[in-house]
Amino acid sequence: MKILATAELPQENRLKLKNLFPEDEFIFCSNMEEAEAYLSNVEILITYGNDLTEPLIQKASKLKWIMVIAAGVDQLPFEEINKRGILVTSAKGIHKAPMSEYVFFVLMLVYRKGKVLIENEKNKIWTRDIHMEEITNKTMLIAGTGVLGREIAKIAKAFQMKTIGVSRSGRQIEYFDKNIAFKEMNKYLNEADFIVSILPSTPETKGFFQYKHFELMPEHAVFVNIGRGDAVSGEDVLKAVCEKEISHAVLDVFEQEPLPKNHPFWEEENITVTTHLSGVSPHYFDRALEIFSENFKKYKSNSKDMINIVDVIQGY
Amino acid sequence: MKILATAELPQENRLKLKNLFPEDEFIFCSNMEEAEAYLSNVEILITYGNDLTEPLIQKASKLKWIMVIAAGVDQLPFEEINKRGILVTSAKGIHKAPMSEYVFFVLMLVYRKGKVLIENEKNKIWTRDIHMEEITNKTMLIAGTGVLGREIAKIAKAFQMKTIGVSRSGRQIEYFDKNIAFKEMNKYLNEADFIVSILPSTPETKGFFQYKHFELMPEHAVFVNIGRGDAVSGEDVLKAVCEKEISHAVLDVFEQEPLPKNHPFWEEENITVTTHLSGVSPHYFDRALEIFSENFKKYKSNSKDMINIVDVIQGY
Repeated sequence: MKILATAELPQENRLKLKNLFPEDEFIFCSNMEEAEAYLSNVEILITYGNDLTEPLIQKASKLKWIMVIAAGVDQLPFEEINKRGILVTSAKGIHKAPMSEYVFFVLMLVYRKGKVLIENEKNKIWTRDIHMEEITNKTMLIAGTGVLGREIAKIAKAFQMKTIGVSRSGRQIEYFDKNIAFKEMNKYLNEADFIVSILPSTPETKGFFQYKHFELMPEHAVFVNIGRGDAVSGEDVLKAVCEKEISHAVLDVFEQEPLPKNHPFWEEENITVTTHLSGVSPHYFDRALEIFSENFKKYKSNSKDMINIVDVIQGY
Repeated sequence: MKILATAELPQENRLKLKNLFPEDEFIFCSNMEEAEAYLSNVEILITYGNDLTEPLIQKASKLKWIMVIAAGVDQLPFEEINKRGILVTSAKGIHKAPMSEYVFFVLMLVYRKGKVLIENEKNKIWTRDIHMEEITNKTMLIAGTGVLGREIAKIAKAFQMKTIGVSRSGRQIEYFDKNIAFKEMNKYLNEADFIVSILPSTPETKGFFQYKHFELMPEHAVFVNIGRGDAVSGEDVLKAVCEKEISHAVLDVFEQEPLPKNHPFWEEENITVTTHLSGVSPHYFDRALEIFSENFKKYKSNSKDMINIVDVIQGY
């Protein structure tokens, strides 16, 4: 079979695929511009999912399967894909290790006064007179209960936290002490010491967290957003922190990225800004192509049991 | 009964004890100097365990029970205590929440490049070009497998780590994939991505980690010491880091504390210094006095089943 990669893969991963599937023909490109010439001839496409358009799908007349090696698939031309009956799979869950680590790292950065510790080290100041909090035993509310939410909840349980999961359905998920539906959230916000948003970008989650929600949180609450920037209005977070509705916000994603130099987030002491890197991992390609390889074996044997099949009608 | 506290307790904890045991007489002092006058008259002593001497024990002729509200008891005059048959209990395990949090916080500080993130935030630099590692799936060797070691191992398992526990006996403990005896350690050091020392100060653990041990660790290993400063020679750690036998050391305890201003640890990029505060917690007194209260109830009812009874012959 002919497989075309429009995502630039490291040399070692290319080699690994060739060794694993010696009877198949891999065409490795650095981007769609380079790949377009091969498009009409291939059955399988490996892509980040942001380089496809309707005309390109039409051009790829033999295409039967698109493997998106990213977690989100919101930029695919689903109508055309659906019309053609093309199978789509994703690398959903690929970020669960780095992103769940990020959550606990930044919470402890705030609670264990990490910035103060680093500043003291720099200035060679020996002091034990630092008011530190513990994350152990606290209550964490996680908006989004997919693969990543479940992973965060699992680690939270190791820190003896109470975990509340918020999702569309509110159905019961492992590692959550309580699962509630989106519409019930307001009743539980006052219990939450930590509020973690891992919401994807959908019409339903746009502007999900509003000022009224921050008003319902305890004053000592810490809000962490690693999902999508548009799940919360930047203005509302800023106001909530400045008016002391919550004590701290840690933001890795923003409505506008890169975050402009003159944005007040950078200067606000009780907002910690990181630069959309909670998912950064040295194991990205290994994990993505492990999913591809597993799926490819199943694809070849006509198994229906592939990993992360995307619903092309719903678009996720 | 008469209880004398030589450890200065917060007002709210004093009140709580009085309310809990209204029939008993509590004498709350700020230190031994202030407390000495009452010593000959009391049956129970609440102390940090560093203010007792043989003459003071002799003076405390009615003393039957010493509650040490600290984890370590190495400064008690055990010979005299044993001669008199005085019961000793400790607050062992009191630091397990903050100290286990500390371990994962500093490992992520190193692996997720926390110092770089904070510096970039300060300078409003938007970049995703930071090489970050993951702590997930790594192997952690923990020297010391008591209450704290077990807690650290439990959290390590939530991060899908392989956990190796090192102790005198090497007996099997929950949450450890493997438990080995001190004398077997050398065989396992090359497997360890993270080496965490929580060893107490005993003749056996003095200078426990030596240069030869760092030579056996992988070059990318991170060494964390939150036990006692004398478990490792400062010179050896410094040499191991400078000669790249390991990639980083995080030290919270030192042979000499405070660490002198001119000590090379402060300046070494691959050594992170914190100031003996891994155990700092806002819940310290609540937890210590909860152990005291539980033990006091049992003491009054002549129950043998008290928490954290110290072996006054072995001294721990």
